[in-house]
Amino acid sequence: MSRFLNSRYAELHPYVPGEQPKDRTYIKLNANESSVPPSPAVLEALSVPLINGMGRYEDPHCMDFRKAIAEVYHVTPEQVFVGNGSDEVLGFCFLTFFSGRSKICFPDITYGFYQVYADTFGVDAQVFALKPDFSIDVDAYVRTDRHVILANPNAPTGLCLPVSDIERILRANRDRLVVIDEAYVDYGNKSCAPLVEKYPNLIVVQTFSKSRNLAGARLGFAIASKEIIKDMNAIKFAFNPFNLSEMALAAGTAAVKDTAYLEKCVKQIVKTREYTVQTLRSLGFYILESHTNFIFVKHPVLFAGDYYRRLRENGILTRYYDEDRIRDYLRITIGTPEEMDEVLRVTKSILCAVA
Amino acid sequence: MSRFLNSRYAELHPYVPGEQPKDRTYIKLNANESSVPPSPAVLEALSVPLINGMGRYEDPHCMDFRKAIAEVYHVTPEQVFVGNGSDEVLGFCFLTFFSGRSKICFPDITYGFYQVYADTFGVDAQVFALKPDFSIDVDAYVRTDRHVILANPNAPTGLCLPVSDIERILRANRDRLVVIDEAYVDYGNKSCAPLVEKYPNLIVVQTFSKSRNLAGARLGFAIASKEIIKDMNAIKFAFNPFNLSEMALAAGTAAVKDTAYLEKCVKQIVKTREYTVQTLRSLGFYILESHTNFIFVKHPVLFAGDYYRRLRENGILTRYYDEDRIRDYLRITIGTPEEMDEVLRVTKSILCAVA
Repeated sequence: MSRFLNSRYAELHPYVPGEQPKDRTYIKLNANESSVPPSPAVLEALSVPLINGMGRYEDPHCMDFRKAIAEVYHVTPEQVFVGNGSDEVLGFCFLTFFSGRSKICFPDITYGFYQVYADTFGVDAQVFALKPDFSIDVDAYVRTDRHVILANPNAPTGLCLPVSDIERILRANRDRLVVIDEAYVDYGNKSCAPLVEKYPNLIVVQTFSKSRNLAGARLGFAIASKEIIKDMNAIKFAFNPFNLSEMALAAGTAAVKDTAYLEKCVKQIVKTREYTVQTLRSLGFYILESHTNFIFVKHPVLFAGDYYRRLRENGILTRYYDEDRIRDYLRITIGTPEEMDEVLRVTKSILCAVA
Repeated sequence: MSRFLNSRYAELHPYVPGEQPKDRTYIKLNANESSVPPSPAVLEALSVPLINGMGRYEDPHCMDFRKAIAEVYHVTPEQVFVGNGSDEVLGFCFLTFFSGRSKICFPDITYGFYQVYADTFGVDAQVFALKPDFSIDVDAYVRTDRHVILANPNAPTGLCLPVSDIERILRANRDRLVVIDEAYVDYGNKSCAPLVEKYPNLIVVQTFSKSRNLAGARLGFAIASKEIIKDMNAIKFAFNPFNLSEMALAAGTAAVKDTAYLEKCVKQIVKTREYTVQTLRSLGFYILESHTNFIFVKHPVLFAGDYYRRLRENGILTRYYDEDRIRDYLRITIGTPEEMDEVLRVTKSILCAVA
């Protein structure tokens, strides 16, 4: 580090994204990405006139994009905040509401970035342990007065909380914020977005990186009360008013309008997931009940770290966490049917070798 | 505001971008944008396979883009930080080095966002008045021990400091940072980028929004010592690791490599600027010596606020600052020759009416 670095960051440990090795071509099942193209409407939206017109600044209020999201989620554009990926949206939540003074809480096993944000913005974070079955300990969040941030479904477990449990947390204390990170919600869970009218302390965050096949376009959004969204926009205008490019706005607007394509892609992933789970179970794997585009698996004989390495040697990347409580598990993204057939083929040969 | 807003922001005044009215079609000369398309290489780079592959995350280290910039500016990729517009790059400078503890200084008349950043990140900011001729008071920056942020050329004056004066400021105290915001440098000023080896306390910030005709793509970068860049990347990875989309990376890499197109566009703007200045001077205007893609003009008879309104009525948007010291001036972006001919035509008719 340089001698100019803010001393508050001396001990900071930035988030480490999934590896992107370039030594060979891998089947990439380590970052919960999609191998499917985005909606054809995206390609159409990124037209020659749009690209040639990029000498102009885009609309910093992103109104067309916010209107399109609002229509799909049955809210008003004033209840929608849009960002450069849901990571930026979450970052703006921290900056706007928590930075330097607040107390928050989240599970011990969840998206690793929550702790990083807390460190970056000087927020006092407490973790509540997941129960032994990896479900969220709802009572802990009901009892505390801290602001809450929960991934629902959770990662890397893939498990989800029913909306009724989140309502219990919301009702327990209306003076603290509850941020629900719904990155994976489209793969079989119910969104809390319809609750923002009822609970002014709720912020629902979603992404275009999963079910809308647009990780590389960096698009995310929050739905909340219009007062909360106004605050987040005020901070955006005090940090980076033009946070979404003309290209991102066009891609996002086209993608969110194509609800039929979203449904088709989700249906395909769920079908592939169920088939993969069924086959792996028949091979002796224990698998948590996934509501996402990934599965979290362990095997009684095959150590997860070895499984990760053997898959990698065979050209398949997955994500292994060498951490307490979850080092027996491997997280595998659900790819195309062909990619998962290859995973199953390689897995069978690995199991034969260890048998 | 909501009752959840961080109390430190209760008095925050976000940056106000140039107006974007939609009541009619305007000649937009109010945001120092470009009416010229970006390099044709940008269109080529945003290919169908790239767009269809956006299910994948892009490289968060942005290495290809940083390599391309490094090559053009004769530095190493480790000396280059890239961001979602130079506003985000400046925001990361504040977050990484100044946030919550530092003292900085900048001119009373300059890019309005510096004060906004200072407010957002709790930084103690002092302004030093420009001299009566609007030149920067170099001695004030030599004397102070505060970190320095200077736009060079400055906005909205368009005036520039010679590199030798910036070296005096850099040498005066090597324990403080000097951030030089070179948004407009390509239109006739010398960059400080070659000095980063000599001065480890220098950060040079540039943008793709002006000379590269890509305001809508949100691309900016910083050049500094590799230690400083490492710090900025650490904070980026603790806030939003994937800050540039696959589309932005492709557009930026293609644009920066096309140095011939940049030179051609700059030459055209400078030529149009000189012709415009000459004609306006012949109409009695006083104009500061512009080294940018805009001019800052006043007239002995035509009040600047009136001039702004009359141009607007005639379909031409410019930027008027109703602020101390500069309310006699109007800032006019240099557009295409045709756009400037229209400005001159309308100006003549306005002058006839007031004569």
